[in-house]
Amino acid sequence: MPQFADLLAQAVQQKKTPVLVGLDPRYAQLPAGLQTAAGPTDWQGQAAAYAKFCRGVIDVVAPLVPAVKPQAAFFEQLGPPGLAALAEVIRDARNAGLLVVLDGKRGDIGSTAAAYADAYLGAKGQSPWGADALTVNPYLGDDSLTPFVDTAVARDAGIFVLVKTSNPGGKTFQDLLCPERPLYQHVAQLVEQLGETSLAQCGYHAIGAVVGATYPEQLAELRAAMRRSWFLVPGFGAQGGTAAGVAPAFDSRGLGAIVNNSRGIIFAHARLEYAQSFGDARWQQAVEAATITMIEALRADTPAGQL
Amino acid sequence: MPQFADLLAQAVQQKKTPVLVGLDPRYAQLPAGLQTAAGPTDWQGQAAAYAKFCRGVIDVVAPLVPAVKPQAAFFEQLGPPGLAALAEVIRDARNAGLLVVLDGKRGDIGSTAAAYADAYLGAKGQSPWGADALTVNPYLGDDSLTPFVDTAVARDAGIFVLVKTSNPGGKTFQDLLCPERPLYQHVAQLVEQLGETSLAQCGYHAIGAVVGATYPEQLAELRAAMRRSWFLVPGFGAQGGTAAGVAPAFDSRGLGAIVNNSRGIIFAHARLEYAQSFGDARWQQAVEAATITMIEALRADTPAGQL
Repeated sequence: MPQFADLLAQAVQQKKTPVLVGLDPRYAQLPAGLQTAAGPTDWQGQAAAYAKFCRGVIDVVAPLVPAVKPQAAFFEQLGPPGLAALAEVIRDARNAGLLVVLDGKRGDIGSTAAAYADAYLGAKGQSPWGADALTVNPYLGDDSLTPFVDTAVARDAGIFVLVKTSNPGGKTFQDLLCPERPLYQHVAQLVEQLGETSLAQCGYHAIGAVVGATYPEQLAELRAAMRRSWFLVPGFGAQGGTAAGVAPAFDSRGLGAIVNNSRGIIFAHARLEYAQSFGDARWQQAVEAATITMIEALRADTPAGQL
Repeated sequence: MPQFADLLAQAVQQKKTPVLVGLDPRYAQLPAGLQTAAGPTDWQGQAAAYAKFCRGVIDVVAPLVPAVKPQAAFFEQLGPPGLAALAEVIRDARNAGLLVVLDGKRGDIGSTAAAYADAYLGAKGQSPWGADALTVNPYLGDDSLTPFVDTAVARDAGIFVLVKTSNPGGKTFQDLLCPERPLYQHVAQLVEQLGETSLAQCGYHAIGAVVGATYPEQLAELRAAMRRSWFLVPGFGAQGGTAAGVAPAFDSRGLGAIVNNSRGIIFAHARLEYAQSFGDARWQQAVEAATITMIEALRADTPAGQL
C-alpha cells in the first residue's frame, strides 16, 4: 500500500490543486432548505441535516479537490447522533475518492494517545472511523506523540501536529521564546525528528504540521525547519490568509502543503459575491464557484500553478 | 444554582475524600465475565460491555467518592457505539449523584472551542452530554480558552486546563524556560487570570488546572501560583504518585484538589493484592477495596484528613 505522504501527493497531483475543504457544519448557517430539525435540542434532526449537507458538499467538491477536513467539534456538539453523522460523512467522503483529514486536535499521555490513534487512523477497515489523517496537539510532549506516529506509520495514515495555529491567540504560548527560539520552533524540531522513519517516495513523510496562513513569514521559517513535512495550512479566506501569503509553504512542484478553507466554501451561498447569483436554493453551485475561485487563486499566486 | 467550584467543594466535604475515579475502560482488561463481544471489531458489543462495566464501577463508588472522570479516548476507540456508551455512562454517574469530569483534553480556535464547550459543559439539560467539567488543552492560547471559560461560567460548570501533565514527556515543552520561567508557569498565570470572574464561596473558581502527582515540587510551586484553582491531580498509583506527594495540592481544610486514580481502582481485580481475594468474579469488591485504601491513604498523609 502507498504511504500516506504519497497518497496525498498523488491526490494533489491528480486534482491539480492543494485545496482542502473544511467540513464545519453549523446548524444556523445551513441553507434554509436543510434546516429541518424540530428545534434547538433536536440533535438527531440536526445531525441528519449535517450528514445531508456534508454529502451535498462532498458531491460537489469530490471531482475538484484531493481531500476534506471534517471538524469533530461541530459533530460532537450534537451528542451521539452527531458522531454517527461524522462517521457517515467520513464514509461518504472516502467513497467519493477523497482523502479525509479528521480535525480533532487530540492529545493525551502515551497509553491514552494510543487509544486515540487506534480510534481514528486507518482507512482500510482497521478503525471504526477510518480517517486517513488526524490533527494532534503536542502540549503533552514527545511520548504523547509517538503512539500517533507508530500507528500512522503502521497503517499508512498520517498526522498533522499543531505547530503554529492561525488564531490571534496562537501567539500566547507558541511564540514565547524558550529561551532563544519560540516554542513553535521546538515543536517543529520534534515533528522533523518524528518523521524520519516514514519518508515516502514523494520526499515527504507521514508527520505533517499545522501552520497557519495568517503568518506568512513564520510559514517560510517553518518550511525551512520542516523540509519533509506536509503542511496543513488553515486560516485562508475568512481568517485573512491570502494565496500569496501561503506560497512559501510549497515546494517548486506545488507539493508540500494543503490549504484549508471551511466557511468560505461550504457557506458560500451566504457570501456577498455568491448570495445574489445562487442563494440558498442553489447553494451547491455556490460551493462549486467558491472552490473553483480558490483553486484559481492558488494556481495564480503559488507554486500550485505547476501542478 | 451553586457554582461548579462550590458543587465540588460540597461533594468533597460530603464524601470526606478528594478521590476522583477515572473511568478508562479497556476491553482486554475487563473482568472475564464482561468480555462478551463477538470479536475485536464488534464495537457495538464492546461498547455495551463498557457501559455495563462502568455502571458496575459507578454502583460501587457512588457512595464513596465525589466524582468520576470518564476518559473520552477509550469510548471514541469504539466508534459511534462507544460514544453512545459514553453518554450513558455520564448519565448513570449523574443519576448516582456523582459529579462528572469528562477527560477529553479538547482545544481549538475560538469559534470551534465554543462548539466544544457548548457540546460538553452543562449538566442541566443544556448539553447533549451533560458533563460538569471538561479537561482543556491550552496550546492554542488565550482566545482558545475564553469560550470554555464563558460557557463554564454561564452554565455553572468547570474546566481543568492542562498545566503540568503526569507523563515523562510532559517536560518536553512544558518545562522549557520561556525565557526565565517554564512554560507551565505561563499557563498557570493565564489560568489564574481566567478564573478571576468566577470566584465562588468556597474560595475557588471554575477554572481548574491539571497538575500531575508525579512532580511533588512542581505541585507546591503551582499551588502558590494558582491559589484559587481546583487542581485535578492525575498520576497517583499506577504512574507512581503517592499520597504524601500530593499533599501540597490541598489547603488546610482538605479542599482545593481532587486526586485521580483510574487503572488502580477500576482494574483492581487484576492487581496482585486483590487478585487472590477477589479475582474476576468479585471484581466490584476489588474496586471497593481499592477505593477505600486510596481514601485512607489520602486521609493519613494529606490535609484531606481534615475533611
